Amino acid sequence: MTPAQLIQKKRDGKKLSNAEIHHFIQGMMKGEIADYQVSAFLMAVFFRQMDLEETVALTEAMVESGERYDLKGIDHPTSDKHSTGGVGDKVSLILGPLAAACGVSVPMMAGRGLGHTGGTVDKLESIPGYNTQLSAAKFNEIVKDVGCSIVGQSQNIAPADKKLYALRDVTGTIECIPLITGSILSKKIAEGTRTLIMDIKVGTGAFMKSKPQARELAKTLIQVGKKMGLPIRCLLTDMSQPLGYSAGNSLEVLECIEILKNKKGLLPGELSSTDLKEITLQLCAQMIQIAKVRKTLPEAKKLAIAKLADGSAWEKFRQMVVAQGGNVDFIDHPEKMPVSKKTLVIKSPKKGIVNELHPEKLGWLVVELGGGRKTMTDPIDPGVGILFHKKLGASIKAGEPIATVYLPENGKNSITSAQVEERFWDAALVSGTRKPVPKLVSETLDR
Amino acid sequence: MTPAQLIQKKRDGKKLSNAEIHHFIQGMMKGEIADYQVSAFLMAVFFRQMDLEETVALTEAMVESGERYDLKGIDHPTSDKHSTGGVGDKVSLILGPLAAACGVSVPMMAGRGLGHTGGTVDKLESIPGYNTQLSAAKFNEIVKDVGCSIVGQSQNIAPADKKLYALRDVTGTIECIPLITGSILSKKIAEGTRTLIMDIKVGTGAFMKSKPQARELAKTLIQVGKKMGLPIRCLLTDMSQPLGYSAGNSLEVLECIEILKNKKGLLPGELSSTDLKEITLQLCAQMIQIAKVRKTLPEAKKLAIAKLADGSAWEKFRQMVVAQGGNVDFIDHPEKMPVSKKTLVIKSPKKGIVNELHPEKLGWLVVELGGGRKTMTDPIDPGVGILFHKKLGASIKAGEPIATVYLPENGKNSITSAQVEERFWDAALVSGTRKPVPKLVSETLDR
Repeated sequence: MTPAQLIQKKRDGKKLSNAEIHHFIQGMMKGEIADYQVSAFLMAVFFRQMDLEETVALTEAMVESGERYDLKGIDHPTSDKHSTGGVGDKVSLILGPLAAACGVSVPMMAGRGLGHTGGTVDKLESIPGYNTQLSAAKFNEIVKDVGCSIVGQSQNIAPADKKLYALRDVTGTIECIPLITGSILSKKIAEGTRTLIMDIKVGTGAFMKSKPQARELAKTLIQVGKKMGLPIRCLLTDMSQPLGYSAGNSLEVLECIEILKNKKGLLPGELSSTDLKEITLQLCAQMIQIAKVRKTLPEAKKLAIAKLADGSAWEKFRQMVVAQGGNVDFIDHPEKMPVSKKTLVIKSPKKGIVNELHPEKLGWLVVELGGGRKTMTDPIDPGVGILFHKKLGASIKAGEPIATVYLPENGKNSITSAQVEERFWDAALVSGTRKPVPKLVSETLDR
Repeated sequence: MTPAQLIQKKRDGKKLSNAEIHHFIQGMMKGEIADYQVSAFLMAVFFRQMDLEETVALTEAMVESGERYDLKGIDHPTSDKHSTGGVGDKVSLILGPLAAACGVSVPMMAGRGLGHTGGTVDKLESIPGYNTQLSAAKFNEIVKDVGCSIVGQSQNIAPADKKLYALRDVTGTIECIPLITGSILSKKIAEGTRTLIMDIKVGTGAFMKSKPQARELAKTLIQVGKKMGLPIRCLLTDMSQPLGYSAGNSLEVLECIEILKNKKGLLPGELSSTDLKEITLQLCAQMIQIAKVRKTLPEAKKLAIAKLADGSAWEKFRQMVVAQGGNVDFIDHPEKMPVSKKTLVIKSPKKGIVNELHPEKLGWLVVELGGGRKTMTDPIDPGVGILFHKKLGASIKAGEPIATVYLPENGKNSITSAQVEERFWDAALVSGTRKPVPKLVSETLDR
C-alpha cells in the first residue's frame, strides 16, 4: 500500500490496521513518507477520527519511534501528572515535590509554553542554573534519590510526537482527540511512569472549551492507557480564569514558593492562592491513591496536607533544584528572583464584582509582554507577568487595584502602558451582578 | 491570517474570501506556504468542498500563477475539447483537425497518460519527430495557419496547477470536484480558447464512476466557466469499455489514420471504430455549434461528416504533423509506424457474448506492457497495446480471437504471455446472456 492509498483509506473512513499505522509512523521517521503526506493524513484523521484500536496503535508507534525509559532502583511507586495546559497553571512545581514527600516517585517530563498557555519548563528555567535537559541516567538518579525530577522532553523520547506536533501546529490539526491522546500518552509511557493523573482543563483558557469535549478526551486517554498498561485517572478542572494569583514565569515560581513555605508576602497586595493550593492537594491525593500509598482519597489528601504543612514538600523542591543545578540562593531568598521592577497597577474604574478574567486573552497579554513565545525561537523574559489582586466573584471598589502588570524592563518591547491597560480590560470585566464561578474540580473519571 | 488559520477556516467549513484564496495560491507559488500546509488545505477542501465563488477564485488564482495566451491573428472562432480521461480515448487526434477543417480554430493543450488512462501527448509522440513542446508564438502560428495545434502543457501555463496536481496525486486528494474544476479550467482559460466542450467520461474506466458525480462536475465546470467568460458544454459519455478498437500509442494513431483516411485494413482482424467515429462527430458538432459556425446540431454534424469524408480533416492532420516537426512519411505510410511485431492472439475459450471489457483493468495492462508510466520518469514503449476484435455485446465463437496483444519487443519487460492472458481474462468476460451496452453519449449539459 502506497502512502497515498493509506491516506485515502483513512479519508474514506475505513479503519487502518495496526500494521498500517506502524508502517506510516516508521515511514515518516525514515523520511520515506513526506511531510506533505503526513499533514494530509493528519487532516483526514481530523475529519474521520480514529477508533480505540487505531489510537492505541498510533500511541505505540509513537512510543517505539524513540527511547523508552525503564526507571531503575526506585523503591516507591511512580506517578506523574499531566495538564492539558492553561494560564497560571504552576501546579507541577508544587505537586512533584509534594507527591515525592508523600512517598510517590515522580518522573515528570514537562513542556514549554504553547500558544497562550505557560509551560512548566519555562517556569523552572526562571530559577538561574536550573537544568531541564538531563540525560536518562541523571533523570533516573534524581527520581531515585530525591523522589522527583522535572525536566523537558528529551530528544530521544517519542521523536515521532515532535514531528507530528510541529506539523499539527502549522496545519490546523491540533484539536483532534486521537492525535492529542497519542501525543500525551506516547511521552508519558516512554518516560517510564507507572500511573498517571490527567488534569484536563475546561473553559475559555483551555484547548478543550466544553465539558463534553473534555470528557471525550478523558475517556479516550483512560481506554488507551488501559490497553497499554498505564492506569489513568482524569480530573476535569476549571480554566475560566487564571489559576492562582500570578501568570508569568518568575512570578509563578514565587507563588509556588509561598505555598511550599507556607509564607505570605513575597509580592505586594491582596493575593490568594486558594484555588491553586486546593487543586494541587486534590491532584496529589489522586496520585497518592492511584500509586496505592493510601487506600482512600480522604486519607491521601490528609497526608498531602500534612507534608505540605510540615515543610517536607519544600525540602523536596529545594533538593530537586539543587540536583538539577539551580542556584538555591534564589529560592532561599526569593526576593532575588528575576522580577521586573517596572510595574503598572491597574485599578477598577468602578465598584462592582469581578465577573470576567478571560484566561486566553490574559495569557496572550503575557506572551505579548515577553513571558511566552510567538515563534519557537523567541527568548523568554522571566520577569514579566501579571498579579491578580482579585479573582472571579470578588467585590472591588472604584479605584482599588485589580491587577499589577510587570512590564519588560529593557524597553525593547513596544507595548505601551496604555495598550497594556486596554488589553487587560478587554479580558477583564467588573460589573454589577455576581456571575456564578465554575467549580474548581467538576468531575473525576477513571473509566 | 496565518496559513494555519486559513487551513483551519476551511477545515471548520467556513467560506474563504476571494482575497484569502488568491493569497494562499500566491503564497504557495512564492514558497511562503509549505507543501505540508498546501496538502492539509487540499484535504480540508476534500471534506468541506468549495462553493461556486470559492471555486472561481481558485481557478482565477491558478490562471494568474502563470502566462495567459492571447491568441492573435486568428480569423476563425476558437474552441477546444477536453476529456476527463479514459482508455482508448484517441478522440482529440481526429477531432482537432476535423474541427479545423470545419472552420473552428483549435488551440489544444493536451495531457500525458495518467494512471490507467492514455494521454493525447503520448499518442502523438509515437509519430517520430512530432514536437509537443512549442513556444507560445509557434503554437499561435500553427493555430492561425493550420487551424489546430495539439501540444503538451507549457511550463508557463498555470504552474500552480502543476504544483497542486503533483501534491493531490500523492496525498489522496484527486477526487474532489472544486479541485478538478480549477485544474481543468485554469489550463483551458490560460491556453486562450474562447469556448470549450467537455467530454466527461463515466463508468468503470473513468475517474467519475457514477452519473450523479459526473453531472455535478459538469455543472460546476459550466458555472465556473460562465463566471469566467468561457462558455462550456458538457457531454457525459460512456467509459464502460475501451473506446474504438485499440489501446496503446502507435495502435491508436493507426486507428485515427484509418478514420481520417476512410481506409480500413491497416491492422489485422475484424475491427470496428463505430463508437470512436460517432463520438468524435458528436463532439465536433458541439464545437461547431458552440463556436457559432453552424446554428443547429444536425447542420453542424452534417458539416463534420462531410469534412471527414472529403479528406479535409486528414489534410489538416497532415499539415499539423508537418508543422510540429513530425515525420510525415510515417503517417503517409502508416505501416512504418512503430508497432511491435511480437503479438499474442487471445481466443475465446467458449461461444457466447462479450459482456465485459473492464477498461480500467485493460488500461493497467497496457501500462504493464510499457504503454504507460508507473512513475513519472518511465519511458513509453509506443509499439505495445491491445486490439479489440470484439466489443461489448458482440457474439463470439469458441476459438475466435477476442483481442491481439502487442507485447514489448525488447523482452526487458518481465510479463509473460501466460500472465498477459490471465490479466486479459480478469478484465474480459464471455457469457451466455447479452448484458445491455450503455449509451455512448447519455447526456448533454450546458447549464
